[in-house]
Amino acid sequence: MLPASLLTRLSARFGDRFSTARPVCEQHGHDESHFAPVPPEAVVFALSTADVAEAVKACAEHGVPVIAYGTGTSLEGHVAALKGGVSIDVTGMDAILVVRPEDMDVTVQPGVTRKRLNDYLRDSGLFFPIDPGADASLGGMAATRASGTNAVRYGTMRDNVLSLEVVLPDGRIIRTGRRARKSSAGYDLTRLMVGSEGTLGIITELTLKLHGIPEAVSAAVCPFPSVEAAVNTVITTIQSGVPVARIEFLDQAMVNAVNRYSKTSHQVAPTLFFEFHGSAAGVREQAERVQTIAAEFGAPDFLWATGTEERTRLWAARHNAYYAGVALRPGCRTWTTDVCVPISRLAQCLLETTADLDASPLTCTVVGHVGDGNFHAMLLVDPANPDEVTEAERLNDRIVRRALAMDGTCTGEHGVGHGKMRFLEEEFGEALDVMRLIKAAIDPQGIMNPGKIV
Amino acid sequence: MLPASLLTRLSARFGDRFSTARPVCEQHGHDESHFAPVPPEAVVFALSTADVAEAVKACAEHGVPVIAYGTGTSLEGHVAALKGGVSIDVTGMDAILVVRPEDMDVTVQPGVTRKRLNDYLRDSGLFFPIDPGADASLGGMAATRASGTNAVRYGTMRDNVLSLEVVLPDGRIIRTGRRARKSSAGYDLTRLMVGSEGTLGIITELTLKLHGIPEAVSAAVCPFPSVEAAVNTVITTIQSGVPVARIEFLDQAMVNAVNRYSKTSHQVAPTLFFEFHGSAAGVREQAERVQTIAAEFGAPDFLWATGTEERTRLWAARHNAYYAGVALRPGCRTWTTDVCVPISRLAQCLLETTADLDASPLTCTVVGHVGDGNFHAMLLVDPANPDEVTEAERLNDRIVRRALAMDGTCTGEHGVGHGKMRFLEEEFGEALDVMRLIKAAIDPQGIMNPGKIV
Repeated sequence: MLPASLLTRLSARFGDRFSTARPVCEQHGHDESHFAPVPPEAVVFALSTADVAEAVKACAEHGVPVIAYGTGTSLEGHVAALKGGVSIDVTGMDAILVVRPEDMDVTVQPGVTRKRLNDYLRDSGLFFPIDPGADASLGGMAATRASGTNAVRYGTMRDNVLSLEVVLPDGRIIRTGRRARKSSAGYDLTRLMVGSEGTLGIITELTLKLHGIPEAVSAAVCPFPSVEAAVNTVITTIQSGVPVARIEFLDQAMVNAVNRYSKTSHQVAPTLFFEFHGSAAGVREQAERVQTIAAEFGAPDFLWATGTEERTRLWAARHNAYYAGVALRPGCRTWTTDVCVPISRLAQCLLETTADLDASPLTCTVVGHVGDGNFHAMLLVDPANPDEVTEAERLNDRIVRRALAMDGTCTGEHGVGHGKMRFLEEEFGEALDVMRLIKAAIDPQGIMNPGKIV
Repeated sequence: MLPASLLTRLSARFGDRFSTARPVCEQHGHDESHFAPVPPEAVVFALSTADVAEAVKACAEHGVPVIAYGTGTSLEGHVAALKGGVSIDVTGMDAILVVRPEDMDVTVQPGVTRKRLNDYLRDSGLFFPIDPGADASLGGMAATRASGTNAVRYGTMRDNVLSLEVVLPDGRIIRTGRRARKSSAGYDLTRLMVGSEGTLGIITELTLKLHGIPEAVSAAVCPFPSVEAAVNTVITTIQSGVPVARIEFLDQAMVNAVNRYSKTSHQVAPTLFFEFHGSAAGVREQAERVQTIAAEFGAPDFLWATGTEERTRLWAARHNAYYAGVALRPGCRTWTTDVCVPISRLAQCLLETTADLDASPLTCTVVGHVGDGNFHAMLLVDPANPDEVTEAERLNDRIVRRALAMDGTCTGEHGVGHGKMRFLEEEFGEALDVMRLIKAAIDPQGIMNPGKIV
């Protein structure tokens, strides 16, 4: 129960942008994960940094939890109000504040989604490359250190945030850094806030790096005789210094799902999807080099194209993969694993994982950002069936422990939320204590998104 | 004065690898900056992580300061023992532990220097790109978030450290992350430690990203009619997406100094030096595109070459710049400024700075990593002449304040040490409080390199 004085204060300050209505709270208690929703007790719809600062300050004075909410597309229960409190919805903070073409950067409010930013930028010759699949808010993407298909060339949110404005747990507003491209001035607060999932503060403004839209793009698709052959092609491609923009992997089960879903007739085999960015001559050269490498690993059916329509056709299977996977068992929820391992261990990790999945009664598919060593097993689970939930948990545990044993991480890009917390001790050992010290120092009351990360 | 019980303990533990001899202490109290040396009271020569951990633990139990020492090539007084204490020299921790060509990474001890690492890697086809000029230790480079000439393409130490082993202020040993190329697991302790200058812990092991030695390299040099024309060429080059590896700037005074020092006859003009990495066709294409851009900005004398000897000849002026600058006034110390601004402000920042330097009685030159917006004014100062020191201080203050007003940083790559501390309040405002909270949480006794950063 929220204290009456807080309810009065927030209601007076925010009027109809403050709500305790049940449907509103319920909508703010769940993301796209398999976890049960946990609604907050109230929602503030913020329109400005001052709104966020005042709401946080009011909550802090009452020791009440605060949870930032963007598009609700996270996958580890990040927005669940595990200890009650107030959700601060920043989707109304959706202004693209300044585009600076000369500096190739942009300042946005946290509710701007990545697709809207790229639509807005279209005529500038610039784009923002991070593509986690969902049309997530940029604030949420920074908060979870998101990445996706373009990370192999353009990096993750870690690499593409220049500076942040953040509301601290006591309501003060800070800026984590300047717009200079590099700096050695003090502790890297920008990188500390990126990936902190609203547990150290709420992001209210982001300055992001932009990249030039490539002069030419080419795409390719190639089925492989084995998972190993596909992964070895990836390793050799990266080692050869081919600056590939995307390398995506679908396992045999996923290609099969896509064929069913999209009525296509792709060869049912482990398959790689490539995208190359550069000059016209450059993308041709890149595609030819990868074609040669793939052939060396026994894959002669390398198809590539530069025309937009042809490229879209080649990549359709990858783009439809998520929905094709889900469609294998309508009505189910998807439990998505997210390990990332050093690329030398990827073939073994994928092969052992595939063997686990094959031996499981659950319907499962695999899709991977293999250029980074990151892949997702999509486990289709009927949430009403406790045996299936237990089985998904068992598989996820095995996959995470395997990745950790290979010097990998439990989460490549989805974040910790409350879903991955129990693996952090194993992943970090005593370093987790340092995270706890930082959390306690910056948020001594523990009101910022409690029950997440540490 | 160090407590007798600490002296006894360290002496018993380290034998002749522990010293309180005056020359040894003096050698560990200065770096390559213009600041007066401040020697520690004792030096431990560490050979292992256990050595560092035990030395730190002993000091912590006595509340005695600890300062990490590598090659002593820092530029902001980082190693000065401002509050006395024990210097831990890690130059003996110089093992290259594991090279993993498949993962393109390497694990090293902190005393390994960048040149030795690259010599060692030569036959592997891989290299470590960060080149800050000095043959610094990799531990020191991580501690100061160093970068240098290759940063425009390969990033800084921030981008090229995968994970660190760190001895905490209480002597515990942590690892900040796994070897996976990306992770969303918890707070980014790796990036927190990179740039923390020994104030949060001592780096005892580094896992670094490696890059493929490019198939082809080409180099170019081009004099410009004005600083503005040179900077506009830089901006256009980067916006066009030319993946240039290095873009370095020398001002007219510096080219003049080089001509005198190396008996060359370069046109005395603002000059850019380029290096291109890629395939044979790729580097040709890159050079041709930049040549076209330079010509558009009124610079027809673009010279480029791919042969090793020819490349070395073209870049000789850049490589000799530091010593050529110093040679303008033998016996002086160099006070090197280090601001970095958004690239759109670089022309104005450089022009106004050059006007300041021209109006000053000091001998000054400018060299810049202009692809990142970073440049150094080298001010030659007779340390025995207080007027000159005051004048250098005045110039440095003006240059920093100008950069801050342009949304830049007081230090692009040298770090804060004690030399830049007084600018952090202006650069970060209340965010500096967050740095102080982190420092107090991780190092509550304040024994780690006290008097630096915060």
